[in-house]
Amino acid sequence: MKSLFYPKTIAVIGASQHTHKVGNVIFRNLLKDFRVIPINPNTKEILGKKTFPSVKKVKEKIDLAVITTKAQLVPKIMEECGRKKIKNIIIISSGFKETGNIKLETKVKTILNKYKITCIGVNCLGILNTENNLDTLFLPQNKLKRPKKGNISFICQSGAIGAAILDLYSEQDYGFAKFISYGNATNTDESDLLNYLNKDKKTKVICMYIEAVQNGKKFIKTINKIKKPIIILKGGKTKKGIEAALSHTGSLAGNSKIYSAVFKQNRIIEANSIEELFDIAKIFSKLKKPKGKKILVITNGGGYSIITSDEIDKSKLELAELSPQTRMALKKTMPKTVNIRNPLDLVGDATTKRYEKAIKLANKDKNINILLIIILYQTSTLTQDITDIIIKNNKKPTIVIATGGNKTEIIKRKLERHNIPCYGFPKNAVTSLSKFL
Amino acid sequence: MKSLFYPKTIAVIGASQHTHKVGNVIFRNLLKDFRVIPINPNTKEILGKKTFPSVKKVKEKIDLAVITTKAQLVPKIMEECGRKKIKNIIIISSGFKETGNIKLETKVKTILNKYKITCIGVNCLGILNTENNLDTLFLPQNKLKRPKKGNISFICQSGAIGAAILDLYSEQDYGFAKFISYGNATNTDESDLLNYLNKDKKTKVICMYIEAVQNGKKFIKTINKIKKPIIILKGGKTKKGIEAALSHTGSLAGNSKIYSAVFKQNRIIEANSIEELFDIAKIFSKLKKPKGKKILVITNGGGYSIITSDEIDKSKLELAELSPQTRMALKKTMPKTVNIRNPLDLVGDATTKRYEKAIKLANKDKNINILLIIILYQTSTLTQDITDIIIKNNKKPTIVIATGGNKTEIIKRKLERHNIPCYGFPKNAVTSLSKFL
Repeated sequence: MKSLFYPKTIAVIGASQHTHKVGNVIFRNLLKDFRVIPINPNTKEILGKKTFPSVKKVKEKIDLAVITTKAQLVPKIMEECGRKKIKNIIIISSGFKETGNIKLETKVKTILNKYKITCIGVNCLGILNTENNLDTLFLPQNKLKRPKKGNISFICQSGAIGAAILDLYSEQDYGFAKFISYGNATNTDESDLLNYLNKDKKTKVICMYIEAVQNGKKFIKTINKIKKPIIILKGGKTKKGIEAALSHTGSLAGNSKIYSAVFKQNRIIEANSIEELFDIAKIFSKLKKPKGKKILVITNGGGYSIITSDEIDKSKLELAELSPQTRMALKKTMPKTVNIRNPLDLVGDATTKRYEKAIKLANKDKNINILLIIILYQTSTLTQDITDIIIKNNKKPTIVIATGGNKTEIIKRKLERHNIPCYGFPKNAVTSLSKFL
Repeated sequence: MKSLFYPKTIAVIGASQHTHKVGNVIFRNLLKDFRVIPINPNTKEILGKKTFPSVKKVKEKIDLAVITTKAQLVPKIMEECGRKKIKNIIIISSGFKETGNIKLETKVKTILNKYKITCIGVNCLGILNTENNLDTLFLPQNKLKRPKKGNISFICQSGAIGAAILDLYSEQDYGFAKFISYGNATNTDESDLLNYLNKDKKTKVICMYIEAVQNGKKFIKTINKIKKPIIILKGGKTKKGIEAALSHTGSLAGNSKIYSAVFKQNRIIEANSIEELFDIAKIFSKLKKPKGKKILVITNGGGYSIITSDEIDKSKLELAELSPQTRMALKKTMPKTVNIRNPLDLVGDATTKRYEKAIKLANKDKNINILLIIILYQTSTLTQDITDIIIKNNKKPTIVIATGGNKTEIIKRKLERHNIPCYGFPKNAVTSLSKFL
């Protein structure tokens, strides 16, 4: 499957001159970084590139074909691709099983299997590989921002969820490795993709949105082998959700209890919402494994330490007990208003310097495994170099909670660029941490 | 208490010439909109205003005094304010009960009661009234943005939570009426504030963050009378949280089950997180009460309709059954790819026009009480006037879910300015809606 994600020569079948057409958007996207051959029997040239009426007429080797034509034309095109020995195909085209056209999809599947073609789709957004800019998403870049390079890969049964998530997290500076919208999974399903991502060096953590697994036995066998963390959001867990899923992809979403049991048995983390899926992924993506589970909370707001303590208690996580040496050293350096305990409330007039002292002492304390630092940046005493202090002293796994407007967002983006996961609220941070530990 | 929120003449006791001092920040903030008298025995003039050594020397009537001096000076100042017949005082100063100085706080309390003074504080951020710009928050505006005028009032036992929330939601265009950080509640507690906000014409919905109620019986008696919706986040609900609360304000957070039972008995909505507190408030703030509980979900992404259906099922909400007339009309106007059911998936190529047709038909259907519109703006077919369509056809109570980057945020801000609550994820929208219905 590697040549699917790392092709040299790509044919866009259904490439178009008209800028608003899918076949034009994809062709243009790929042209920047690849040798791309436009296939279209009705035109001679697209963006200065000579057009071929069919892949039959192309002499050079083609590693990947992307199909954007009408559904009816797909079987004939598949035959041509098969004879041309194209081994990887992405079929963007819709109008198959999802609209009741099961016969047409079966026909395509038969041809794919005959020629042993790996096919993503039909009826999908296709793939995005941030490493080489392979990008078959036909949604315009001014509407859907592309994410930065990173180590999260995302297998998504729903194109719309995939698009919305990529757009949202691109702005939040999340890094992705591979994104795959696999639509109807005509001959390549989530298990095949999992197997590939398990070997992919750029992927550290795998996120999935699925409504229904194509082949239960294959899926269980696959996830049992995967060594990387997998976080799954299952759509269609309730009666109303299952009905909606049946109408959406025609797939039977099935008994959610069985799914949950299978996930649990195979150490797969189940997320409860779209937001939680990526809240959890963020920690797996950025944090090194701590030596233990004992957390120190540092804050400049008492209310936040209470809310965070509540969340820690609910998630059954542990607060570290400060060592006598740390207690002594804190007592010496902190003002009298600071109560030496955990959560360590540096109080409202905490300066950046005071945070620095606390973090440095925490780094030396063997009783502490993880730092959970709360920054309420609204006070006049906290300066922007609070980020540098945290980045410079980032020895133990550290997570930051910061609530606020634009200035707070700037701080969070900077910390995240230095591999410190940041959250807006205690609940998100602590819930995610509990799934990581 | 009205003259506390609507004073004419304000004395700032501890007003300062030094721009970084609390007494200067507050004095400057108030100077723009009020007649403000600086009190400071060590200087003659602050920002061109003649300084008085004490309120004793001021001849005119003072409606409100804001105290920013050292804690030790407060009792003497209180005596002077009492003799001057100042009936409202905000004591920003800290160094009382919260640092173990119980004696000093009792002394202040005795004087306050002797002169029947209403006092916010001690140890607080004070108040913000968006109607007349009364603003005693001493945190700089470049760090803590002030919110717009609106109908949410927020009583907050924690100054830091208050500051962070105001900053965050200012940027998200939430409107607030009154904000009160009441610190140690020396002689005015959450019950007194609730009673005032119940009468305040600008307040439609009351949000609260509390760690411990000062007087349980008084609180129960009060909330029983309040007719406006109250949404509460209780800090210190678990063992670890209660311990943290004890260290923070010295208040015993108490048995969370008793609190929850009291809230429930008195139709108070309990939020489970900071985010949820305002997610719920947003609906109460903006939405008119629907005639029933039947929801129609309209979407351009199938995956989102499944996730939303799951949330609706979990929250025990109801999906409306489309009337035969609506079904017929939809069948006539929608393309074949649109399955006429609820959730109504307008599919990936949905145009703004298609949304308009669906919303107009939904408005006519008596089986439908609430519209839950999902907008995934990443597609090329959706245009920016989707907002105008929704605003123009906003007949039934409408909520929007939209996930994405900057362009999506622009849409959400515009809709919210037209009283349509917007959420980033299905879970937040549906959970909040379930608390509203």
